[in-house]
Amino acid sequence: MKAIMVVADGMADRPLPDLHWKTPLEAANTENMDWLAAHGVCGIIDPVSPGFPPGSDTANLALLGYDPMEVYRGRGALEALGAGLELKRWDVAFRCNFATVDENMVVVDRRAGRICTEHASKLAESLQGIRSQRYPDVQVIFKNTREHRAVLVLRGPGLSTAVTDVDPGATGLPVRRAKPVKPTLGAKTAAVVNELVEKFHEVLSHHPINEERAKTGLLPANVVILRGAGAPPELTPITSKYGIKAAAISAIPLVRGVARAAGMQLIDVPGATGSYDTDLEAKAEAALNALKENDLVLLHVKATDVASHDKKLDKKMEMIERIDAMLKRIIEGANTEETYIIVTCDHTTSILTGKHEGDPVPVVIYGPMVRTDDVKEFGERTCAKGGLCRIRGVELMPIVMNLMGKVKKFGA
Amino acid sequence: MKAIMVVADGMADRPLPDLHWKTPLEAANTENMDWLAAHGVCGIIDPVSPGFPPGSDTANLALLGYDPMEVYRGRGALEALGAGLELKRWDVAFRCNFATVDENMVVVDRRAGRICTEHASKLAESLQGIRSQRYPDVQVIFKNTREHRAVLVLRGPGLSTAVTDVDPGATGLPVRRAKPVKPTLGAKTAAVVNELVEKFHEVLSHHPINEERAKTGLLPANVVILRGAGAPPELTPITSKYGIKAAAISAIPLVRGVARAAGMQLIDVPGATGSYDTDLEAKAEAALNALKENDLVLLHVKATDVASHDKKLDKKMEMIERIDAMLKRIIEGANTEETYIIVTCDHTTSILTGKHEGDPVPVVIYGPMVRTDDVKEFGERTCAKGGLCRIRGVELMPIVMNLMGKVKKFGA
Repeated sequence: MKAIMVVADGMADRPLPDLHWKTPLEAANTENMDWLAAHGVCGIIDPVSPGFPPGSDTANLALLGYDPMEVYRGRGALEALGAGLELKRWDVAFRCNFATVDENMVVVDRRAGRICTEHASKLAESLQGIRSQRYPDVQVIFKNTREHRAVLVLRGPGLSTAVTDVDPGATGLPVRRAKPVKPTLGAKTAAVVNELVEKFHEVLSHHPINEERAKTGLLPANVVILRGAGAPPELTPITSKYGIKAAAISAIPLVRGVARAAGMQLIDVPGATGSYDTDLEAKAEAALNALKENDLVLLHVKATDVASHDKKLDKKMEMIERIDAMLKRIIEGANTEETYIIVTCDHTTSILTGKHEGDPVPVVIYGPMVRTDDVKEFGERTCAKGGLCRIRGVELMPIVMNLMGKVKKFGA
Repeated sequence: MKAIMVVADGMADRPLPDLHWKTPLEAANTENMDWLAAHGVCGIIDPVSPGFPPGSDTANLALLGYDPMEVYRGRGALEALGAGLELKRWDVAFRCNFATVDENMVVVDRRAGRICTEHASKLAESLQGIRSQRYPDVQVIFKNTREHRAVLVLRGPGLSTAVTDVDPGATGLPVRRAKPVKPTLGAKTAAVVNELVEKFHEVLSHHPINEERAKTGLLPANVVILRGAGAPPELTPITSKYGIKAAAISAIPLVRGVARAAGMQLIDVPGATGSYDTDLEAKAEAALNALKENDLVLLHVKATDVASHDKKLDKKMEMIERIDAMLKRIIEGANTEETYIIVTCDHTTSILTGKHEGDPVPVVIYGPMVRTDDVKEFGERTCAKGGLCRIRGVELMPIVMNLMGKVKKFGA
């Protein structure tokens, strides 16, 4: 038995007046999701806990069977893992942005005008080798990923994730100084971070790329702002937990990092972008292909969440329907006599608030021997009447693995 | 207010092609269970946790209100309690089989040809008084129960349950040497076990009973194999927890041990066998009788599980219908104005896999003032729509005791 789990990021939503009080998922044309619902068992999931808006990291950890309340140690390390870095147990990693500040270190643009990857890569090169003078025992690893995004890893004795963000989270605010969360806890790390932010700023301010950008009216990427200090979570790999082979497809470093931390093999799909222009057909083909070698394949689609954050209802509806079309390919391409197809979301993202919300998400499990129910349509409210009732995110994977015969008996 | 709880071992199942995708419980004629469902409140239960296949020990602990994740300390001690032995806190107990090995200590039959109780009792006599020479401070208690089954209890300083099984679990494999789970943890216990296995083998190999068996073509019971090292769980008796009198009826030592550990009085019912030939009418009468003196009576029926392990669908259906007939007697015989009748299962056992599965089980609570729902038939899927929704095994007993007015207020 095998399983393919499709996670549509932030697809779940709330009833909207513009949709006659339907949710986008209820209003969209989703005949394939509905087919799965009609032939499978449905339910609703609280990704972390009822009412708690999860991040994509904590939610996907939960959907892979890890209780984020126990294992989550911050975003940064998951981003770094997703960016392909190897981490050690005591590393402290940060999610970084190339950004633009004025002469008073006030943030003008948190993404440096969404700087292109090419420019960012050249800037990143110039930052290699910079270390803390005060703490030369701390190794510094800086890597840019896509556009303005980058990760920073600190390695050395006495480091801690107990430091505040340098990134102020909004424009018009000055870059913050990292502070230890308690007087001692995080003091060394904060000092190293502050020193690096200054040194990076110095180098970037005079970088030829930024001078070139200024000439063409582009914002200079003259600072690196850090947030989400994190250490790598210590997870029992899903592969050894259940004795399976597992792979993941996602364009998003954060989710890729979660999958990697869980011991899943990452599959790169050309054309998968994490945005509206992503190639879902290519992702479906890659997932079906990966099913040949793997017992479990996670297929994550980001764009529904992007549309929700952007408050673009049309885009969200369009992406939902494109995911539905992708599911048609998966239903047709998978050997459904030995494959479970699971569709769910990592969290609710509201088109109206533009934020992750703590409302539950729908789920369907389709496949051999499931206890089917009366649900005929896949939606937030229809699934609440399904045979799975209401479960927690962390409970989904054991349920799927039990169907696959992979969970060991507890007791005699 | 009183309550009688009927636990049908492994009765829950999955939809089967042979039953037009109904489960055995859905397909069987169960008008009395259906009557209870129609007049009670239904739900589904994850005995331990969603997706986790429980043993009968952990599941019944949970149904009696004890979280097995917290209290479970192995099967052996529960078997020993069920066999009527008195245990002390630091005792280490094992489930044992009389078995047959060849001259290389390879297991030929794990049950010594299902040796009769009479022969086993005589063999057991000859093992009394055997102790470890290396650790004479360890007291050894060996008791056979029914047929090939027996229990071994070790009592003394420095013992631990952290030892591996001697029983290889299958024929064609050599008897294993017990090993400590960690270099030190369990070392003394493993040494005692290995010494006893050898000494038992020596005595049994030359025992007149085995010579007699050989002459009549029966397999010799020339070894005792051990598994499931366990210490007695430390449970607050259900009687003092809720201020009630409680009794249990079960033919199975393991479940009897659980009930005893929970402080319940054991009621022996002549004709209750734990198999297809069990006398359910006698069990019903005994339960009704026990209700006069007790507030809570557990009535456990094993044969549905036996049929599932044997993959005998007809037998499973037949046993379900016989349990249903037994419920008729209970409904008629109980004073339903002051008695709650609960029907559930300890776990799902699949006719197809022949194994315990982690799928939830149905439950109905019938009795005064329950919040009845729309469920009209007792089944795995109908009950999922019931008013109890989806609960954990450990939550059932407080729900029942609350209806009986036995749960103390938490807070002011």
